Amino acid sequence: MTDGTIPITDPSDSTADVALGVDVGGTNIKLGLVCANHEVLAEWTLSTHEERGPQDALTRICQTLNDFLDQHNIERKRLLTAGLATPGTMDIPGGLILRPPNMPHWVNYPVRDEFAQLLGVPVAYLNDGSAAAFGEFWAGTGRDHSNMIMLTLGTGVGGGIIIDGNLLHGVNSFGSECGHIVVDSSDDARTCVWGGGQGQLEAYASASALVARVLDRIASGESSQLSEQGESLTAKDIYDAAGVGDTLAVESIEKTAYYLGIAVTTLVHTIDPGLVVLGGAMGFGGAGDPIGSRFIDVIRQEFVRRAFPLVGERTTIDFASLGSSAGYIGAAGYALATMDGSGI
Amino acid sequence: MTDGTIPITDPSDSTADVALGVDVGGTNIKLGLVCANHEVLAEWTLSTHEERGPQDALTRICQTLNDFLDQHNIERKRLLTAGLATPGTMDIPGGLILRPPNMPHWVNYPVRDEFAQLLGVPVAYLNDGSAAAFGEFWAGTGRDHSNMIMLTLGTGVGGGIIIDGNLLHGVNSFGSECGHIVVDSSDDARTCVWGGGQGQLEAYASASALVARVLDRIASGESSQLSEQGESLTAKDIYDAAGVGDTLAVESIEKTAYYLGIAVTTLVHTIDPGLVVLGGAMGFGGAGDPIGSRFIDVIRQEFVRRAFPLVGERTTIDFASLGSSAGYIGAAGYALATMDGSGI
Repeated sequence: MTDGTIPITDPSDSTADVALGVDVGGTNIKLGLVCANHEVLAEWTLSTHEERGPQDALTRICQTLNDFLDQHNIERKRLLTAGLATPGTMDIPGGLILRPPNMPHWVNYPVRDEFAQLLGVPVAYLNDGSAAAFGEFWAGTGRDHSNMIMLTLGTGVGGGIIIDGNLLHGVNSFGSECGHIVVDSSDDARTCVWGGGQGQLEAYASASALVARVLDRIASGESSQLSEQGESLTAKDIYDAAGVGDTLAVESIEKTAYYLGIAVTTLVHTIDPGLVVLGGAMGFGGAGDPIGSRFIDVIRQEFVRRAFPLVGERTTIDFASLGSSAGYIGAAGYALATMDGSGI
Repeated sequence: MTDGTIPITDPSDSTADVALGVDVGGTNIKLGLVCANHEVLAEWTLSTHEERGPQDALTRICQTLNDFLDQHNIERKRLLTAGLATPGTMDIPGGLILRPPNMPHWVNYPVRDEFAQLLGVPVAYLNDGSAAAFGEFWAGTGRDHSNMIMLTLGTGVGGGIIIDGNLLHGVNSFGSECGHIVVDSSDDARTCVWGGGQGQLEAYASASALVARVLDRIASGESSQLSEQGESLTAKDIYDAAGVGDTLAVESIEKTAYYLGIAVTTLVHTIDPGLVVLGGAMGFGGAGDPIGSRFIDVIRQEFVRRAFPLVGERTTIDFASLGSSAGYIGAAGYALATMDGSGI
């Protein structure tokens, strides 16, 4: 798997202006201080403590930042802006987090303006999938491209779409939800974790879907070295078992890749970005990773088989390169890119 | 069905600047002279005479225009620009038509620059699905929106996507090919007319797919008033039979709508445009059309069942309003909108 280790520049070596990037998840908040040249001066992971609500988390984020600035004698005026990424649903123009799944205490909250007030700089607000995509676009696998789709494969499947350098937010702040395109229209298709969403990508290609696929096959009597693991099984376990040749693990990863190939076909025929980037906790990959290579090869094969030849030849499918830092780096990069109010 | 009759303004009542819009198809070329306020001064339909190649067609288009300008004493300098729409594949930045299906004599031809030279004004070049979408966006059902997806249901299924007022062309001039999103991933899924494209929308929701669906069911022994029609059957026949209660016709139209509901779910979760417009030769609709109403109701129901509730509630699905004129009107409107080189 991509380890996502980002080199940290010693802040005493830097005099550049910086942006704070914040990527809020249900369990953890990742944040970092990022320069316009993509250098990262510091990164942190905080517990979300979701049950304490957003005010508590935003206060802790500011405290973490302030302690760091004090400790390193960094002038506060070097902080120009901040980018804040959260899961949807959300109202991006209004700066509101609306009703994110699994975050019952972050509901209908004016998160952008509250954060801007605490922090004392303008805050750009965006979806977490968009933030990861913008990170890879700005400083990662997509840095030489002007168009890109990113899929983040984790508990769910997130996405981000960049067209001519602009993030696609959607008129209801619901664009780029690539995990919710339909890949199986059969009557017995699986449903997403939110209960609806029959046949949608998330139920077929998330880390949770991979685990569910393996557990289903074990329950139906198939043999695997994973048989004894029960409900504690993770995507990483399946990846490791595939690495030592466990057939059920290999086939289950290939089936995941097959559905991703279908999804990539649909997305590329819609957007035609030239580049599709795969990231997230299930983003197998990196040089010399045979399972990751097999995973992406099956995606490519299925895509090329289904796509128009011209676009099949001219589309690159590749792994993300910033690991779990993509979200806060993208949030910071987006804040810097939209500082002039151009609203990328 | 939408008759698409566009009111024609008497050119002697007009002194406005105009753009020529041209919509090239394999059988016919539709063109018209359009003002910036959406008024149409004239429209024509020419035979493509595909076998004579593009130079012949472009020459006849110019002749038609020149005759009209002469006949009505319209000063030539009032013609500011032209928009030219063709089927793909194409290279939009290069102004080349590459290899359109069913147009073997229009291959690798510099159609934009040849036309500009013959016409003496700048020519904006775009995909035919995009042109129809831009027409509806500029002067039709989408005129109060800033984002829109259009599906054109004809022999194939075309599409056009507008995001924040900009057409989505794609990096390989292959964006917005909404007819080629996957709606059926089963092993025995149908394929598109170009031979590949297994399970893609065009094979499930075009007029040809509707006809194929009815013929298949008749061949398997089901009864219908359409049974005797054989290979001459058209989508219009099926529409008429449904209007007088033929069960097989009604069910086949509903099945077409079902797959469109799946496609709309995928497209809306990707783009979140707030508006989806259905047009093309199979674009049933208009007030007081019970079959058209049933068709769009089934699409809406299937979409709302599958979509996230928030976006399901906030997305309008509606019929196009410019009929078969949408393409040339959109080409002209696009040419006017991009005259300053902003490249919408």
